[in-house]
Amino acid sequence: MTRLRFAPIPATLPATVPFTGPEALERQRGTPFVARLGANENGFGPSPHAVEAMMRAAPEIWKYADPDSHDLRHALAAHHGVAPDNIMIGEGIDGLLGLLVRLTLAPGETVVTSDGAYPTFNYHVAGFGGLLHKVPYRDDAEDPEALVAAARENFARLVYLANPDNPMGSWHPAPRITAMLDQMPQGSLLVLDEAYAEFAPDEAIPQIDPQDDRVIRFRTFSKAYGMAGARVGYAIGPSELIAGFDRIRNHFGMNRMAQIGALAALQDHEWLTETRRQVAASRDRIADIARANGMTALPSATNFVAVDCGADGAFARRLLAELAVLGIFARMPAVAPMDRCIRISCGPARDLDAFAEALPTALQRAQDASRDA
Amino acid sequence: MTRLRFAPIPATLPATVPFTGPEALERQRGTPFVARLGANENGFGPSPHAVEAMMRAAPEIWKYADPDSHDLRHALAAHHGVAPDNIMIGEGIDGLLGLLVRLTLAPGETVVTSDGAYPTFNYHVAGFGGLLHKVPYRDDAEDPEALVAAARENFARLVYLANPDNPMGSWHPAPRITAMLDQMPQGSLLVLDEAYAEFAPDEAIPQIDPQDDRVIRFRTFSKAYGMAGARVGYAIGPSELIAGFDRIRNHFGMNRMAQIGALAALQDHEWLTETRRQVAASRDRIADIARANGMTALPSATNFVAVDCGADGAFARRLLAELAVLGIFARMPAVAPMDRCIRISCGPARDLDAFAEALPTALQRAQDASRDA
Repeated sequence: MTRLRFAPIPATLPATVPFTGPEALERQRGTPFVARLGANENGFGPSPHAVEAMMRAAPEIWKYADPDSHDLRHALAAHHGVAPDNIMIGEGIDGLLGLLVRLTLAPGETVVTSDGAYPTFNYHVAGFGGLLHKVPYRDDAEDPEALVAAARENFARLVYLANPDNPMGSWHPAPRITAMLDQMPQGSLLVLDEAYAEFAPDEAIPQIDPQDDRVIRFRTFSKAYGMAGARVGYAIGPSELIAGFDRIRNHFGMNRMAQIGALAALQDHEWLTETRRQVAASRDRIADIARANGMTALPSATNFVAVDCGADGAFARRLLAELAVLGIFARMPAVAPMDRCIRISCGPARDLDAFAEALPTALQRAQDASRDA
Repeated sequence: MTRLRFAPIPATLPATVPFTGPEALERQRGTPFVARLGANENGFGPSPHAVEAMMRAAPEIWKYADPDSHDLRHALAAHHGVAPDNIMIGEGIDGLLGLLVRLTLAPGETVVTSDGAYPTFNYHVAGFGGLLHKVPYRDDAEDPEALVAAARENFARLVYLANPDNPMGSWHPAPRITAMLDQMPQGSLLVLDEAYAEFAPDEAIPQIDPQDDRVIRFRTFSKAYGMAGARVGYAIGPSELIAGFDRIRNHFGMNRMAQIGALAALQDHEWLTETRRQVAASRDRIADIARANGMTALPSATNFVAVDCGADGAFARRLLAELAVLGIFARMPAVAPMDRCIRISCGPARDLDAFAEALPTALQRAQDASRDA
């Protein structure tokens, strides 16, 4: 078996994946879900202009995409008021996080994150031989001061913070992020994941000099722009760091329709405004449904809502399983005490109707199972 | 500048890229190319069924793709008569080659390839700290026996062979590949890049037990299926090696329309047959154009033709530059003596008409410049 020997780091890695896709669960169930509310996808969908642009681009798919993503990169630079060389476009934030870890982290170096925060980032850190130091959430939110303190103590190379947070939907005001930046130890880089930024109040989004060498930010077309399946994310950061991606990335890795669709989506401000409105209404609706069932929705600055089930993680897991039986795909935080919650993505009325209809039965069954357990 | 310190391997890498995209050249020119014949794209385009499937999938782009690529993987398994766990789907062969190198190669280990073969593979080897040992081409073809000998001498972990070859279009009959396999040293894995397999004669494609642990093969939807911009490639190999990709890949990295389009393309046998016919005719046409201009087309088992300009690399580079001035995007081999050629991708008549029209002028100018030099 010498030929199939893996390299030293992969040899130590488990074959686990960060998330099971809903399609795999559907294959197990033998039938599709009624409502897809588990992956924080945006069921309100992409701008019709983006759809139209992708459809027009389909016959031209024989061409490789522009490896520089020139047009999209320049449009994003204008959108954010930064230079084009402050922007790196890649195959979703997931892909870019992997590249960032590879670009900056030597095997054996330490990374600080929150216990229960984004698993795919942890997957990449482990995948490149990094050591993870996890800091507890405080009051259902990531804890900037504790993250910085842990970075100091552990000589962390990278510090991950999502603002707004996934999976809880909580957020910190901009001054708390900039204060965190000012406290970052020399040699530590803040990985500021702003995947949900477009849903957050303006006060959550700090103004940061793009050349500030203490931080790299990540944005995506997967959430507010409704294009998760397209795989377009981008980083905003100092030009010297951004240029580093060119040393290692898969230059011809972008899908051509995705590039073109993302550009059209970015230009459709009305659709984004309308999406925000619908998502806000959807959050309220989820809170109403939770309340009607004796549960509590947590405040959210994202397109999902963490719903406190009022019991422990075992109960929430049971509830999630019963919801799945009834055709509702949802997920939940992995770590206590946040795992008292289930996490429901915002979506169109028909999906939330299905959730509202299934929830009382699922709750009853989960309660019965808990009594029997 | 401690924060922007790169990890040890990326710190040593140049900022160069494997290829400059035609769009970057067009931005320099200030005007689009008339004929895009440089990247071995397939200008005959994808199956209309694939286009239709992608267009239908566009409004559903708010959903992440199935991270298992289940439907496409099972269809490919049936197509090749292998098990689904012998197949790994990824973001083009380029993306998969990067993952393979990461999965199997420890920093400092050696990889054997041919001097002048696919630069993107070399880019990934360097990107993960591998050492490249390059074997010369022999008679405009990669040299299986020399590659194996070099693998033995250098304790190579990976041996790269493209069959048919890019950039020369040459190919080896299947028995020569299986003989190579039988000679592979213990501990060496053959990376058999069959990106152009669908254009090759049947005799070029060896029957290999998918569980054979001496080899991993790569195929793509970028060439014969005309979907380069979609980014769908796949590996065929022993299940234990294939499963290893799950330890490190970007699980949610596939574009959803690309998955759906590739499945439709795979099922359209007629379109593939027609594409092969058109490509064969296009190869003949390129040979005719070359002959009419006193040049020699080399035999090709791919969708491109290496055209021997009858002089040295400097002349071929000049000719390429003059063609570009006249709106013809082409590329050429990087290494002598193959760099006496320019490489022309097959394409629709209008593109080859433009090439035929531009070539005499470009040749004249290149000859004049050579005399002046």
